[in-house]
Amino acid sequence: MSNKAVSYAGPGKVEVIDIDYPTFELKDGPGVNPANVGRKVNHGAILKVVSTNICGSDQHMVRGRTTAPEGLVLGHEITGEVVETGSDVEFVKKGDIVSVPFNIACGRCRNCKEGKTGICLNVNPDRPGSAYGYVDMGGWVGGQAEYVLVPYADWNLLVFPDRDQALEKILDLTMLSDIFPTGFHGAYTAGTKVGSTVYVAGAGPVGLAAATSAQLLGAAVVIVGDLNEERLAQARAFGCETVDVSKGDPKDQIEQILGVPEVDCAVDAVGFEARGHGAGAAKEAPATVLNSLMEITAAGGALGIPGLYVTGDPGAVDDAAKHGTLSISLGTGWAKSLSFTTGQCPVMRYHRGLMQAILHDKVSISKNVNATPIPLDQAPQGYDEFDKGAAKKYVLDPHGMVGARS
Amino acid sequence: MSNKAVSYAGPGKVEVIDIDYPTFELKDGPGVNPANVGRKVNHGAILKVVSTNICGSDQHMVRGRTTAPEGLVLGHEITGEVVETGSDVEFVKKGDIVSVPFNIACGRCRNCKEGKTGICLNVNPDRPGSAYGYVDMGGWVGGQAEYVLVPYADWNLLVFPDRDQALEKILDLTMLSDIFPTGFHGAYTAGTKVGSTVYVAGAGPVGLAAATSAQLLGAAVVIVGDLNEERLAQARAFGCETVDVSKGDPKDQIEQILGVPEVDCAVDAVGFEARGHGAGAAKEAPATVLNSLMEITAAGGALGIPGLYVTGDPGAVDDAAKHGTLSISLGTGWAKSLSFTTGQCPVMRYHRGLMQAILHDKVSISKNVNATPIPLDQAPQGYDEFDKGAAKKYVLDPHGMVGARS
Amino acid sequence: MSNKAVSYAGPGKVEVIDIDYPTFELKDGPGVNPANVGRKVNHGAILKVVSTNICGSDQHMVRGRTTAPEGLVLGHEITGEVVETGSDVEFVKKGDIVSVPFNIACGRCRNCKEGKTGICLNVNPDRPGSAYGYVDMGGWVGGQAEYVLVPYADWNLLVFPDRDQALEKILDLTMLSDIFPTGFHGAYTAGTKVGSTVYVAGAGPVGLAAATSAQLLGAAVVIVGDLNEERLAQARAFGCETVDVSKGDPKDQIEQILGVPEVDCAVDAVGFEARGHGAGAAKEAPATVLNSLMEITAAGGALGIPGLYVTGDPGAVDDAAKHGTLSISLGTGWAKSLSFTTGQCPVMRYHRGLMQAILHDKVSISKNVNATPIPLDQAPQGYDEFDKGAAKKYVLDPHGMVGARS
Amino acid sequence: MSNKAVSYAGPGKVEVIDIDYPTFELKDGPGVNPANVGRKVNHGAILKVVSTNICGSDQHMVRGRTTAPEGLVLGHEITGEVVETGSDVEFVKKGDIVSVPFNIACGRCRNCKEGKTGICLNVNPDRPGSAYGYVDMGGWVGGQAEYVLVPYADWNLLVFPDRDQALEKILDLTMLSDIFPTGFHGAYTAGTKVGSTVYVAGAGPVGLAAATSAQLLGAAVVIVGDLNEERLAQARAFGCETVDVSKGDPKDQIEQILGVPEVDCAVDAVGFEARGHGAGAAKEAPATVLNSLMEITAAGGALGIPGLYVTGDPGAVDDAAKHGTLSISLGTGWAKSLSFTTGQCPVMRYHRGLMQAILHDKVSISKNVNATPIPLDQAPQGYDEFDKGAAKKYVLDPHGMVGARS
Repeated sequence: MSNKAVSYAGPGKVEVIDIDYPTFELKDGPGVNPANVGRKVNHGAILKVVSTNICGSDQHMVRGRTTAPEGLVLGHEITGEVVETGSDVEFVKKGDIVSVPFNIACGRCRNCKEGKTGICLNVNPDRPGSAYGYVDMGGWVGGQAEYVLVPYADWNLLVFPDRDQALEKILDLTMLSDIFPTGFHGAYTAGTKVGSTVYVAGAGPVGLAAATSAQLLGAAVVIVGDLNEERLAQARAFGCETVDVSKGDPKDQIEQILGVPEVDCAVDAVGFEARGHGAGAAKEAPATVLNSLMEITAAGGALGIPGLYVTGDPGAVDDAAKHGTLSISLGTGWAKSLSFTTGQCPVMRYHRGLMQAILHDKVSISKNVNATPIPLDQAPQGYDEFDKGAAKKYVLDPHGMVGARS
Repeated sequence: MSNKAVSYAGPGKVEVIDIDYPTFELKDGPGVNPANVGRKVNHGAILKVVSTNICGSDQHMVRGRTTAPEGLVLGHEITGEVVETGSDVEFVKKGDIVSVPFNIACGRCRNCKEGKTGICLNVNPDRPGSAYGYVDMGGWVGGQAEYVLVPYADWNLLVFPDRDQALEKILDLTMLSDIFPTGFHGAYTAGTKVGSTVYVAGAGPVGLAAATSAQLLGAAVVIVGDLNEERLAQARAFGCETVDVSKGDPKDQIEQILGVPEVDCAVDAVGFEARGHGAGAAKEAPATVLNSLMEITAAGGALGIPGLYVTGDPGAVDDAAKHGTLSISLGTGWAKSLSFTTGQCPVMRYHRGLMQAILHDKVSISKNVNATPIPLDQAPQGYDEFDKGAAKKYVLDPHGMVGARS
Repeated sequence: MSNKAVSYAGPGKVEVIDIDYPTFELKDGPGVNPANVGRKVNHGAILKVVSTNICGSDQHMVRGRTTAPEGLVLGHEITGEVVETGSDVEFVKKGDIVSVPFNIACGRCRNCKEGKTGICLNVNPDRPGSAYGYVDMGGWVGGQAEYVLVPYADWNLLVFPDRDQALEKILDLTMLSDIFPTGFHGAYTAGTKVGSTVYVAGAGPVGLAAATSAQLLGAAVVIVGDLNEERLAQARAFGCETVDVSKGDPKDQIEQILGVPEVDCAVDAVGFEARGHGAGAAKEAPATVLNSLMEITAAGGALGIPGLYVTGDPGAVDDAAKHGTLSISLGTGWAKSLSFTTGQCPVMRYHRGLMQAILHDKVSISKNVNATPIPLDQAPQGYDEFDKGAAKKYVLDPHGMVGARS
Repeated sequence: MSNKAVSYAGPGKVEVIDIDYPTFELKDGPGVNPANVGRKVNHGAILKVVSTNICGSDQHMVRGRTTAPEGLVLGHEITGEVVETGSDVEFVKKGDIVSVPFNIACGRCRNCKEGKTGICLNVNPDRPGSAYGYVDMGGWVGGQAEYVLVPYADWNLLVFPDRDQALEKILDLTMLSDIFPTGFHGAYTAGTKVGSTVYVAGAGPVGLAAATSAQLLGAAVVIVGDLNEERLAQARAFGCETVDVSKGDPKDQIEQILGVPEVDCAVDAVGFEARGHGAGAAKEAPATVLNSLMEITAAGGALGIPGLYVTGDPGAVDDAAKHGTLSISLGTGWAKSLSFTTGQCPVMRYHRGLMQAILHDKVSISKNVNATPIPLDQAPQGYDEFDKGAAKKYVLDPHGMVGARS
C-alpha cells in the first residue's frame, strides 16, 4: 500500500515522499537508533492517519538547528483510525478512532508506572523519553504520513467513545496529541487555580493552548505576551488580555491590566529560541523569557515551562547557548520562593479529561488556536507559513477525512 | 445606636428584635457559652451589615431540631462595611467592604496555621470550630442584624479591592461568606477536575453552588439531583443536567444522561435531613444520600460531604438517627476504594480565588442560586418561603444598600 | 511437572492438593469466572514460588464467611522466580526473583494508567479489582502452590535487583506482595507525617505493618490497639505503645500515653469482623472500630481504612451486617472534619520504595510481624494457628528456598 | 536591664556590644527600614534568649558580601523564655519556653494565610519576607543577645509543651528556629519519600540537617557531598554515605555507592558561594552545584534549593554573578523533566512535627550537626572558627541556661 509522508530535506526544506507501509517491526532508516533497528512491535497498532499537525518543535529541526538527518519522516501529533493490531494488542480494536500521545511510552517501566510517560525508560536507547519523527528520540517513524505504527498500543492510545462524534469534532480532538495537554501542563504546573492571574509567554499554538487551559482551570485573568500582533489578536479573540513585548517590558503592561505589576502564575511557551523584549525584540536572547517571568511572578508563585530548552544548539547566538547554558537571574526567583517545572508534558496525564471537556462542549481549542486543515501535499507551504508567524495551527489531512480544502 | 436583628423565637418562628449595638467584648445572652462571657475582642471589627443571607443550616435550628435557645440571634453569612476597629487591628480599615467567613477562627492556633479554620481551637470553649449565630458554637452573636462584631478581624476578613465595584457586585460577593466556598469545597474534595463527570445531591443553594463550582473547575458534565422540580429547573438554567429522585434511583437517570450509570465525583449537599428516593421520597431516610452516592460513584472516586451530619438530632425518625447513627453500606464504598471528606468548609481556603472569579466576570453565582434580596424586616417571610422549598437564596438587606424591594 | 497447592476444603478446612502446572491460558476450575475461561495470557510469566504468605483475608474465606467454592486454590501473597515468560513479555527475564502485587492489574486501562491498580477494569469480569486465589475476583489461580501464573508480567512484577541479596532478605521481601504496602497505605492515607501521633486498630500482621510504616514515615508515637496480649507484646517489641481494648475504651488509655485523649492519624487494620471494646470484647460489633476511631482522632485528622469491609456477610451477627450495612456515628466524624480512605491498597504505588528501604536495612518488617516460615505441607496447621490468634505471620516455603524447618 | 548582643563590626569582624532592652516598639538603629521605625508591637513578646545559633547566612554578612551596615545586631536562630507579652497577645504566656521561626510573619496577610510565612507581605517594607538581624529585611533587631522582641507572638511562636523537658533537650530544640526545618524543606521539596536515594550538596549545618531530614522521611540512602573532610566525617557519623567533591565529579562517586550514577532527589545546601569541583575546587563557581545536581538527578526527579541565591553579590567572582546571574545548563534539567523549589523555608510548616520527633526521641539533630554551646561573649571566636570550616554548629548561651563552658 502507498504511504506518502513529510520528510526533512535539509535546512529550511521539507518534502512529501513515498515511504514503506508500516509493519510490526521498527526498520532501519534516517534517524533510527541502531539499537532500535529490528525491534519487534507486536504490541503495536497501525493507524490510518486521520489528522496530523505541524508543531513548533518540528520547526527547530526544519530550521536546521538540530542534528536531524535528511530524510527523517516528521510528525508527532497524530490522530488516526486503527487499521491493524499486533498479536499482543488486547483492548484497542480495528476501527477505533484514537489519539496518539506524542510521547512514546512502554507502560511497563518505573516511570510509566508513576505516570511519567514523557521519560519512559524503554523506548529510546539514548536516554529517557521519546517521540515520533524526532531527532535523537530513538527513530520511531513520524506520523505526518498516510499510515503510521504506534507501539504499545493498549497503553498509549486514547480511544474516542464514538466514531461519528469523533470525526465531527476532529479539529478539536486532533489537539489532544500534543499542544492541548502541553499547554495544560504549563498552566497546571504554574499552579493555575480558580481565581488565579496567569501570564503566558508566547502566543504560538502552545501558548494559546496554555491560555485556553488556564481559562478551563478557572483563571480570573489570562494575559498572553508575544511580539507578533496577529497572534496576539488571536489570543484576544477568546478573551485573553495581551502584552506586546516589542513595546517593552511586560511588567508595565501587566500593571496597566491588573493594577499590580505581577501575576500568580507564569507559563513559558517559548523556550530556547526566545527573543529580547522592547527594542531588542529583533534578536535572540535565550534567557529573556525565563528572567522576565521571574520578574513578573508574585512571591510564592510558580513557573510552568513547557517551552523547549535544549542541551546543545548549534545555531545559537553565543557559545554558552550553543552548549545549552543560559544566563539566569536565579537570585530573583530565590528571593520570591518561586518553583519551576520543566520538561515534556506527559500527555496521558491530561488527555482523557481534556477529551471529555471537548466532547461536552466546554472548550473550543480548535477555534482558539485557529486550526487550519490542509492536504498532506501542502505540508511544505504549511511549514513555510507557520515559520513566518502565521497565527494558525496547520492540520494535515492525508485522507481527506478532516475536510481540508486546498 | 439602634441594632435590629433576626432571632429564633421557638420552633418554626423567627422575629425581628432590637439588640445592643456591638462593643469589643462578648457579652452574655441567649446561647453564649459561659466561658466566653466577658471575652475581650480588641482584635475585632464592628461591621455595618451590607448583606446577610438566610442559610439552610439556620433552618435546622428554626425547625426546632436543635437545642438552640429562644432569643438566639441568627445569621452567619455576612458581608459588611467596617465602621470601627479594635485597638489591635492593624490592616483592616474603616470603610473597607469585607466578606466574613462563617467559620470564626483565631488565626493563632495549630489548626488555623494549617489553614483548617473550620476547626479553630480557640473560639469555641466546647469543641473545635465555631460560627456566628449558631447553637453550641460558643455564642458569637449572629449577623442577621444591622451591626455585628467580627473577632480577629485582620485574620478573618476578606477585604474587597474596590468599594464601588464591591457594592455593584454585592449579590454575587455576598455568597462568599458561606455557600459559594461550601459548594466549592464539596466539588473540590469530591475530586472534580477538568473533564470530570459530577453528581450533586441536592438542588438547594449549597447544591447549586457546588454545581457552579464544578463547572468552574472544568467539569465536563454536572448532574444535580433533587425532588423539588422548581429547584431542578434552577439547576438546568445554568447548564446542569438534572435527576428527579422522586422518580426513582438516580442510577438509571444518570445512565440515560451519560451512557454509564456512574460518575467520577459526588457531592452530598443534603446532609442528615435526607429523604428517601422514589416512592419513599416523602419520608426522611437519613443515610439515603450517602448510600446512593456510594452506589453511583465510579471505583476510585471521591465523595465531598459538605451537607451537615449531626451528633444528636432530637427530631429524627428513629432512635439511631436521634443519636446521629446512620446505617451506611460501607462495604459498597470499600469495594470501590472510595474516599470521603466531611465537615465545615474552611472558607478562607477558597474565598479569595472565588472573589477574583466574580470580580473578573467568570461566574454568576447570584444568578445560579437565584439570589433574592429582601429587607431585614421581611426575614420571617423569607425563612418561611425558603423552608417551603422556594428555589431562591434570600439575601437580607438591613440598610438598603443591596437594593431590596419589599 | 507436579504442582502442589493449598485449597479451600469447606468451612474451617484447607488441604494441600495436586493441581495442573500453569500454562499461558486461564482454564476453568473452582471459582473461575466463566467470562475468564480460556483467556490467553501471553503477557504472563510462570513463577516458581519462592515464598507465599497466609493472609488474614484468606481467613474470611476459610471461616466460611464468603461464597468461596470448595477446591478454590488460595494465596495472593507471592514472591517467586521467573521460570517461563509468554511471547508478549519483553522486560522480565527467566531467573529474575520478583514480587507479585496481590492486586492483578492489566496496565492498560484508565485506572491502571492513574496508578489505581487495586481497581483495574480489565481483569475481573464482575467488577473493578482482582486478586489471586480469591472468591469473586475473576478466578485467577492462587499462589500458595509450587508454581503460579502471573498475567501482565511486565506491568505487575517488581524485579529485585540482585538474586542473592533477594534470597538472603526473602523473609522481609515476601511482605511486599501485600501486608507491608497495605499497612503503609493505611498509615499514609491516615495522613502520617514526620512527628504525627498514630493509632493503629488491630495488631495482626497488617496492623503491625501499618505501625512499622508509621514509624518509617517519621511518626513521633505509634500506638497499637488489640485484645490479644501476645500480639500487643509483638507491637511493643519494636517500639510501639499499646492499648488493650479488652480493658475498655482506647480513649482513656491513649490519654495516659500521650497526655491527650486523641491522635492525629488513625488506621483501621481490623475491618468488618471487629469485636466490641471493654466488656463487650467477646462478641462481634462490626462498626466498633470505625466509631471508636472517629472518637479518638483529632479534628482535622484522617482515617486510613485498609481493613476489609464487605457488601455481604452471610455469617454476620445481625441482618444489617449481613447486607454490609453498619451503624456509623457519622456526625462525630463530620463535626471534626475527618476524612476517610477505603479500599484495597494499590501495591504498585508503594512496593518499590519499600523494597529499597528493606534492601538498605532501614526497616525489619519480617521481625516486626514475626515472619515464620513453614513448609507448604504444613499450611493447614499454619491456617489453624493463625486463626487462633498466633502473633505470627506464616510464610509458606514450597521449594525450601526460604529455609523453613518443619 | 542590660542587654548584650553580637553585632557586625565591618568585614570579617563581629563584636559583643550593649544594646537597649527591647520595648513593644521597633526603634531606629543600624539597618532599620525607615518605614518600620516607630512601629507599635503590642502583638509582640519579649524573650529572655535561652539559645541562639550562628548561621551560615550570618557569614555572608560578616564576610562583607552584603550591604549590611556596621552595628547591625545579628542573629535569627532564637529559642527563648517569654518574659513579657504585649497587650494583644492572648495565648502565649510568661514563662513559656518557645522556638522562634527565623521568618518573621504577620499571620494576617494572604501569604501567611496560605502558610507561606517566608514571604509575609506585612513585615518588610522592601519586599515579601523578613528575618531578625538581617540586612534588607526590615530592621528587626537580631537575637544573638540576652533579650529580643518577637512580633506577632501568638502567630510566630511555637510553645514547647513542658518547660523542664524543653530545657533538657534544648540543644536539639534550638535547631527548630532555622536549620532543621530548612534542611527538612530541602529534603521534602526534593521529593524525598520512603525508599528514595538522596544527594545533599554541602555538609555544613544545613546540609547535615537536610541529610538528617531525608533519613527521617525514610530515604533508603543519603549521600552528602562536600570538600571539607571534617564535615564529611560528621555526615558519616550518622549513617550517610559521602562524596568528596575535591576528588572530582560527584557522578562517578555516586555510581560507586549506588551502582547507578544518579539519585532520585537532590538538595542544594550550598547556594551562591559554591566552589568548583575537582581540581577547580579552590575557586568560586557559583553555578557549579546547580549544574552538577541537574547532572546527577534522575529524570523525573526534583531539586530542593534551600541554599541562598542572591540578586546582587558585590564580592562575586565575575560581573554576571555580581548581578546574581548564573550560567545554568537548563537544557539538561529540561530534558529530564526536573522540577525546582527555591527560597526561604517557611519554618512554621514543619517546626511542630520536627519538635514532636525530637521530644519523642526519633531524631538527634544536635548530635548530627555537632551542636556546640559557647557563651555569648565568645561569639567572635565562634564566627571565626565556623568561617574556617569547623564541623560544628555553634550555639550561643547568653544566660548559661544551655550549659556552655568557655
